[in-house]
Amino acid sequence: MRMRKKKWAEPWIEEHRDFVYQNPVENKGKWKQLLQRETLHLEIGTGKGGYLNGMAKLYPNEAWVGIEKDISAGAVAARHAVEEENPLLENKRFIIANAEQLQEWFATGEVDVIHLNFSDPWPKKGNHKRRLSSAKFLGMYRDILTEDGYIRMKTDNKDLFEDSVLYFLQNDFTLTEFSVDFRRKEHAEDVMTEYETRFMELGQPIYQLCAKPCRHK
Amino acid sequence: MRMRKKKWAEPWIEEHRDFVYQNPVENKGKWKQLLQRETLHLEIGTGKGGYLNGMAKLYPNEAWVGIEKDISAGAVAARHAVEEENPLLENKRFIIANAEQLQEWFATGEVDVIHLNFSDPWPKKGNHKRRLSSAKFLGMYRDILTEDGYIRMKTDNKDLFEDSVLYFLQNDFTLTEFSVDFRRKEHAEDVMTEYETRFMELGQPIYQLCAKPCRHK
Repeated sequence: MRMRKKKWAEPWIEEHRDFVYQNPVENKGKWKQLLQRETLHLEIGTGKGGYLNGMAKLYPNEAWVGIEKDISAGAVAARHAVEEENPLLENKRFIIANAEQLQEWFATGEVDVIHLNFSDPWPKKGNHKRRLSSAKFLGMYRDILTEDGYIRMKTDNKDLFEDSVLYFLQNDFTLTEFSVDFRRKEHAEDVMTEYETRFMELGQPIYQLCAKPCRHK
Repeated sequence: MRMRKKKWAEPWIEEHRDFVYQNPVENKGKWKQLLQRETLHLEIGTGKGGYLNGMAKLYPNEAWVGIEKDISAGAVAARHAVEEENPLLENKRFIIANAEQLQEWFATGEVDVIHLNFSDPWPKKGNHKRRLSSAKFLGMYRDILTEDGYIRMKTDNKDLFEDSVLYFLQNDFTLTEFSVDFRRKEHAEDVMTEYETRFMELGQPIYQLCAKPCRHK
């Protein structure tokens, strides 16, 4: 999600180093200990944080980390939490950086669930390798996911969804959930963002899946 | 596809035993020889034959067999071919019987492509095992498909499509094509039936996939 650059973002991040990170190599392998929770969720491309903040509130006993590469969007997400919540929920953190460095921040088998919500579809063929569901990323996800860990993906983009299903299967993942119109049924377990609500009002279906790495023993 | 019973159907079938079969055990393993083609397509649940007759015309150098359990619908499909085509295309046949006996008519590795078009969704949970994409059928398809053979499925039914994707993966098939809105792109290679046209006019997407049995050597 691109947004206009916020001038306050960088100094604000600087002041909240205990809550918003840019290269948290020191937390690698220690997130559950740090957040004092046994289940760790990671959202990649967390945008303005509607989903992450909502889910952290809905599941206070689980840990939530959001990664966003856009400094302004990531700062909005974190600031929203700091300013709106009283007390600030202690089960979440933000990383403002490019997710390509994921493995420097998360250890093998550390993450229980990875969430990809309305990721950039990168429509041009030449940019497909930048998609968060492309082979390179799936390799990293496989590494950082726990033995039973899995990926939850939602999107409104047909091309991204269609291609992603094939990416998962080609990269030795299987699907454990799959929907071509996720919101036609009640899903109280999953926070609905403003962005998602807008699509639903337009009558556009939300595509959803859960994918799990096949673990060959 | 259910339709009103046609009184003419049974005697008509009786008169066209060389074109419409009810239990063609004698053809097992010999379809390509009989139809003098190297590629054998099998449509299960061929209804009134719009797809089968259209595809047999579009691909005259390939063999097409349609199975339909409803006598009236199957007779309409076959009669349509006999009465409308001059000369009658010699690359197709109809089987009017329940597809559960598939393996009595087709040998291991005999069929190149199995087509499932707008199959009965059997919405009630207790009837899911009757779906043409359910585990029992997938086992039969795996047997009769050639080494590189695959299944092509199209449907307008969300529940059937969602469940079928999981059936395929749970039964050790992989997907090689996948679409949540097949007709948004031009697909001149695939005949569009009246039934399908009606859905498109209603703005309902057609879901499509190709599934291939994983062959572990």
